[in-house]
Amino acid sequence: MKNEKKCVIFIIDGLGDRPNEQGKTPLMDAKTPTMDKIAKEGICGLMNAIDIGIRPGSDTAHLSILGYDPYKVYTGRGPLEAFGVGLDLKEGDVAFRCNFATVDENFVVLDRRAGRISPEEAEQLEKVIDGMEIDGVKIIFKSSKGYRGVLVLRGEGLSCKVSDGDPHEEGVKVNEIKPLDDSKEAKRTAEILNKLLKIVYEKLNNHPINEERRKKGLPPANIILPRGAGVVSKIEKFYDKYKMKGACICGTGLIKGIAKMVGLDPIEVEGATGTPNTNFMGKAKALVDALKKYDFVLVNVKGADEASHDGNYDLKKEVLEKIDNMLSYVFEHISREDVYFVLTGDHSTPIEMKDHSADPIPIVIWGKSVRVDDVENFNEFSCAKGGLHWIKGEHIMKILLDLTGRNEKFGA
Amino acid sequence: MKNEKKCVIFIIDGLGDRPNEQGKTPLMDAKTPTMDKIAKEGICGLMNAIDIGIRPGSDTAHLSILGYDPYKVYTGRGPLEAFGVGLDLKEGDVAFRCNFATVDENFVVLDRRAGRISPEEAEQLEKVIDGMEIDGVKIIFKSSKGYRGVLVLRGEGLSCKVSDGDPHEEGVKVNEIKPLDDSKEAKRTAEILNKLLKIVYEKLNNHPINEERRKKGLPPANIILPRGAGVVSKIEKFYDKYKMKGACICGTGLIKGIAKMVGLDPIEVEGATGTPNTNFMGKAKALVDALKKYDFVLVNVKGADEASHDGNYDLKKEVLEKIDNMLSYVFEHISREDVYFVLTGDHSTPIEMKDHSADPIPIVIWGKSVRVDDVENFNEFSCAKGGLHWIKGEHIMKILLDLTGRNEKFGA
Repeated sequence: MKNEKKCVIFIIDGLGDRPNEQGKTPLMDAKTPTMDKIAKEGICGLMNAIDIGIRPGSDTAHLSILGYDPYKVYTGRGPLEAFGVGLDLKEGDVAFRCNFATVDENFVVLDRRAGRISPEEAEQLEKVIDGMEIDGVKIIFKSSKGYRGVLVLRGEGLSCKVSDGDPHEEGVKVNEIKPLDDSKEAKRTAEILNKLLKIVYEKLNNHPINEERRKKGLPPANIILPRGAGVVSKIEKFYDKYKMKGACICGTGLIKGIAKMVGLDPIEVEGATGTPNTNFMGKAKALVDALKKYDFVLVNVKGADEASHDGNYDLKKEVLEKIDNMLSYVFEHISREDVYFVLTGDHSTPIEMKDHSADPIPIVIWGKSVRVDDVENFNEFSCAKGGLHWIKGEHIMKILLDLTGRNEKFGA
Repeated sequence: MKNEKKCVIFIIDGLGDRPNEQGKTPLMDAKTPTMDKIAKEGICGLMNAIDIGIRPGSDTAHLSILGYDPYKVYTGRGPLEAFGVGLDLKEGDVAFRCNFATVDENFVVLDRRAGRISPEEAEQLEKVIDGMEIDGVKIIFKSSKGYRGVLVLRGEGLSCKVSDGDPHEEGVKVNEIKPLDDSKEAKRTAEILNKLLKIVYEKLNNHPINEERRKKGLPPANIILPRGAGVVSKIEKFYDKYKMKGACICGTGLIKGIAKMVGLDPIEVEGATGTPNTNFMGKAKALVDALKKYDFVLVNVKGADEASHDGNYDLKKEVLEKIDNMLSYVFEHISREDVYFVLTGDHSTPIEMKDHSADPIPIVIWGKSVRVDDVENFNEFSCAKGGLHWIKGEHIMKILLDLTGRNEKFGA
């Protein structure tokens, strides 16, 4: 019999917080009747995406929640960005995030974003770099959103243990890329990158696009600055791992990268920006729609995290209320008979810290036959008393597989 | 910006207990208003220093609480004692605890403590042993508190997999030291030790100090009995690991050894004896003082454990009340803005067992922005309902790093 049970993991990015002087968190303060209803009808607890005391990025947290060990599959931002822009990567590819930048003849960085060149200009310059070959290594380059881009090295004997070319500031020279360990692979990779940057400068500096920019008094995009090296690791695709057809609804490139990396279909929603002004209801409708076609949907709503990074308590509260409204639509359209719904976050982003912390996040699992506990509100304090106690991100998919009858019995 | 947040881990040695016939533990029975206040203002839980069901020593428990894996860095008591007496040890040194003892001409042990010889006598005898060389191995020996001492072998091809020379009883012969595995290193180490014991006997038996003792009718200290072999392992120093300048306040040699091993500065307190009669208030004042100079202070108060080992319920209760008084002084002098304070134990020492057990220990973390829970009393039962749920010793430092903004983010 085909398993018809669907699963949703709904991630409110940066959800958790620490109490303020009045002992309140934005989640406690916000009016979130739908979240509270879900908590009341589900089984609650606290969750650390990776482990107690570990302060995760959104990327490593999402990997862990999807059941992938970030210590094994996460080697740096590069591969995620490369997956995010839609490159078809292979195991062993070494990928970097890049900026187009402006340097003078001594390679001193004058503008780290090359005057924010347009996507159209970037696409022209991309063609100059993409497809080159250096020492038997294929160079793949793709621009994204104008001055940003992704560089991939494909070939034998490469390593991601190399330093950034990007000096991360202006007025200083481009970093010479150095091997970060004693391997010959790291040495070779650094050499290839240093050669590449020289060739890129020679090819771009007098490129017609840049001559045109100079005429307009704009800084030329005459170099690329690689950073965040990572190697593409072997990763079992989501469907192969769980036998569920999966999709992802999110506005941010980082999470899109994760989704593509593990093989979740991206669902584009108009106006989904990954900011507090995202198209909340568009995403809610997309989720309800996706559940008709997919067994599993990962949703990430980023706005609360953005508000936290800005230290904006009121905005975080407001975003949480908008998300509650969005959930209200979703819960009008799903049934406990068909859907298991996990509502949680990827990490805490306390207002006082303006950055991620290791504080655990509230979680509720809602659906048929879960062991409903006494928790009546969805927040950091009430969920601590829930029936799930404390779990790790890696447990979530396992619990969902179990609830939906998809996991294998170990033993007789 | 310099991180000014301080951290204290305050260990009540042997804190936890099992309920008596009336369902009470000494901690429940004792009047501990300050501990209860800390619990009320902090986040509580239960903690196992190593893991559920693991019955730790004070040494392995403290290592784990400080974030060191005892399964990797703890190889035996010898190295701890050697660090404790202030020896400058090197990775690979093999260290033993020793007693000066009295043997007859057939090496039968007549007195395992050589009539408790004085520190002055021991220092004279120490000079005979210290500095010898056997088969290319340097012999280092240091006496401590009279009949006790530490023996260190330094050289190539040594192992700590050797049996004790100490027979742990009188009226029997000194044990021949045997290799405990098939390695040539263990064989070589055992041979060197057996040679050493013969040489020590020859050198000490007619030493003027012993001739003098015989004249007074006292047993001569004519042998040393090594036990508790351990190899000194590579250990990342506390400052390098956490970037916090750390100190330790404790009365017992074992914990002093741990402190020196990981690189915490020892703070000497007059009258700190590691017994129920220790100078409680002296330690409290030393802690308040240390917080002016250090980022991190580990405090160990041993008395409750001593009382437990004696099966003395009332004394344990009394010690806990004295510690509460000590904490009252401390909490008059620290502020939630500056200090994160962890109050816990290293292990349970149930009165009924007169020894360490694996029962978890109450823990509370107090400081700015912790998620205060409903717990109003500090004991084994109330803390089980706290917001921390259950954690391991290894999590404590990670949580403190996170609360004080010192940990690295993993990912983006």
